[in-house]
Amino acid sequence: MIRNTLLALALVAAAAAGSAAQTGSSSVREDFKPSVLNQPGQEYPQVNSQGYVRFRVKAPLADSVKVSLGLGGRGGTKLTRGEDGFWTGTTEGPMDEGFHYYHLTVDGGTFNDPGTLNYYGSVRWESGIEVPAHDQDFYALKEVPHGKVEQVLFPSKSTGTARRAFVYTPPGYDRDPAKKYPVLYLQHGWGEDETAWSNQGRANLIMDNLIAEGKVNPFIIVMTYGMTNEVKWGKIREFKIEPFQTVLTDELIPYVDAHFRTLANRENRAMAGLSMGGMETRLITLNKPDLFGYYGLLSGGVYSPEDLKDKAKAKLIFLSCGSKERPDNVKNAAAALKGAGYNAVSYISENTAHEFLTWRRSLRELAPLLFKN
Amino acid sequence: MIRNTLLALALVAAAAAGSAAQTGSSSVREDFKPSVLNQPGQEYPQVNSQGYVRFRVKAPLADSVKVSLGLGGRGGTKLTRGEDGFWTGTTEGPMDEGFHYYHLTVDGGTFNDPGTLNYYGSVRWESGIEVPAHDQDFYALKEVPHGKVEQVLFPSKSTGTARRAFVYTPPGYDRDPAKKYPVLYLQHGWGEDETAWSNQGRANLIMDNLIAEGKVNPFIIVMTYGMTNEVKWGKIREFKIEPFQTVLTDELIPYVDAHFRTLANRENRAMAGLSMGGMETRLITLNKPDLFGYYGLLSGGVYSPEDLKDKAKAKLIFLSCGSKERPDNVKNAAAALKGAGYNAVSYISENTAHEFLTWRRSLRELAPLLFKN
Repeated sequence: MIRNTLLALALVAAAAAGSAAQTGSSSVREDFKPSVLNQPGQEYPQVNSQGYVRFRVKAPLADSVKVSLGLGGRGGTKLTRGEDGFWTGTTEGPMDEGFHYYHLTVDGGTFNDPGTLNYYGSVRWESGIEVPAHDQDFYALKEVPHGKVEQVLFPSKSTGTARRAFVYTPPGYDRDPAKKYPVLYLQHGWGEDETAWSNQGRANLIMDNLIAEGKVNPFIIVMTYGMTNEVKWGKIREFKIEPFQTVLTDELIPYVDAHFRTLANRENRAMAGLSMGGMETRLITLNKPDLFGYYGLLSGGVYSPEDLKDKAKAKLIFLSCGSKERPDNVKNAAAALKGAGYNAVSYISENTAHEFLTWRRSLRELAPLLFKN
Repeated sequence: MIRNTLLALALVAAAAAGSAAQTGSSSVREDFKPSVLNQPGQEYPQVNSQGYVRFRVKAPLADSVKVSLGLGGRGGTKLTRGEDGFWTGTTEGPMDEGFHYYHLTVDGGTFNDPGTLNYYGSVRWESGIEVPAHDQDFYALKEVPHGKVEQVLFPSKSTGTARRAFVYTPPGYDRDPAKKYPVLYLQHGWGEDETAWSNQGRANLIMDNLIAEGKVNPFIIVMTYGMTNEVKWGKIREFKIEPFQTVLTDELIPYVDAHFRTLANRENRAMAGLSMGGMETRLITLNKPDLFGYYGLLSGGVYSPEDLKDKAKAKLIFLSCGSKERPDNVKNAAAALKGAGYNAVSYISENTAHEFLTWRRSLRELAPLLFKN
């Protein structure tokens, strides 16, 4: 804990120094350490205490190696070749805290950084890096009782496949065979899949930690693939909710209620999603208001009082996004909902954009509000 | 089923034609299809009905692109650049049926094929490809009841970490809270990790299918990381079993027995492993004969009657390998054990080497023999 506090203080200092640091590389601190998401034994990429990222990739005969990660609009980071055949380079400035996807461009081809673990995003397995956040303690792997993340394969007649879902069951789930739990259905964003919330999202660790602190009523989280119909980026307006809605409401929910000890009613069932998963949450909760009692849109749009008119009243409407997105939309929508008598809560993640730290924090804020009334 | 039978016949024919096919590329059939392990939407790599693999990788400015997969000793497959900036190439001959790891060398650097899913092997996430096996039905995802694969994080004092294990629970595990199950501890090979048996090994699907056919008494499988101490390839003789043995026997087994409904005794506990995992199985079962009743070494060495003298008698000793490994060692060892009064069974996987199809088939053969006497 002391180490975490010191790290937090160091990072607050780093954040304060951030703007100055961007003006010249002379101020880059040489305290780079391997990213915690590196493959075992890999030294690079590295992150320093200011949030700069340094890359090192072997490709002795290549003519150009670029990294997609860097400052927005500046085209990422170009690496330069050393005499040892390794290409190295450092981001022009500090990156936002938290998780980032990226990839390499090696002589015009798209490859992953062989140094890092891969995470499914942008409809491909991408390289991932973690810039330690000042509040990283809430999603850290700590010495607390841990729940399980279970892979289930559930039958889906509508798609003619056995489909995969991951199910988080809280610590203690295996102790008392009479106890039943509420369920949160939690969706990933565009180009991601059912692995996102427990890999890059660390949903299981966030829950383990919140439960250890006594901040939430333990509940089950179910995560499945939400792009049942293919949607190309930029054609999101052509998205049709019906195929996924059928999988979720007619196939997955009955499977979960049959195979896990759930409290199988509206008062104990929530749906939330990030980005495109928020769009799906909004459409499905409005189409099936009798199924879900709690709604969460994480960087995924808003509800208006008009949307909710004449439907079973939601017990909670949670709206969030990063401060670098459009926070006023979220705040204004929550205010309008409150004005119309709804239990609406908004949360803005400071100094984050449309990325996973926003959504990890949003889950931390949402979870304690669920299944409490 | 009909489709599978036809495919099986086609592949038997392909295998017969295999030797001839290797003599010239003129006989390569142009019926290539995307590998089933490709990332969503990716057309390459492809496999034809004879087992040839064709690669296609975009790298318009590269000077050389090679693939580590190809015929043994011939240095893999060199790709050639087309005018469209894509590098393509086909293996010189058919590959063995089943799963293969591989990677690209792009201008001297090691990268994964952006077309495929990645699998942890060789102490890195590698590209994976599947050459459909004539008997692939036994590890296919079919319309049968599916068990779960659960990720657990168990406390480990000896290593000062929370460690990860995957636990397969059979279909029906969640139905009867009074029923208890035997447990197989199943280890990966050198450079792999606890993801190997359920990803490239398909252990969960093999079990689901065997259970659906009534061929096995349902049991739990526990898979954890076996390289607790770092071992470099080529230095396997310096391997010390104690660190992993402590994790397995003093930490993981008590955790599993506390958190799952197990039959927690020697008669209902097995250990098996592939390659290095077989070596670990051998050492640990000999060190702790009172813990395990069933032993399995899959391409992982043998026991001699001398090894087992004066120890609690194993209920089953299962030894296996591929026909392209050293099958006589396995057969002779099993014969010697039988001659000395042990219940030893050997299995040789036809036309496979030190690769995962050998081990998938070995699990199929081992599972029905476990916990039966």
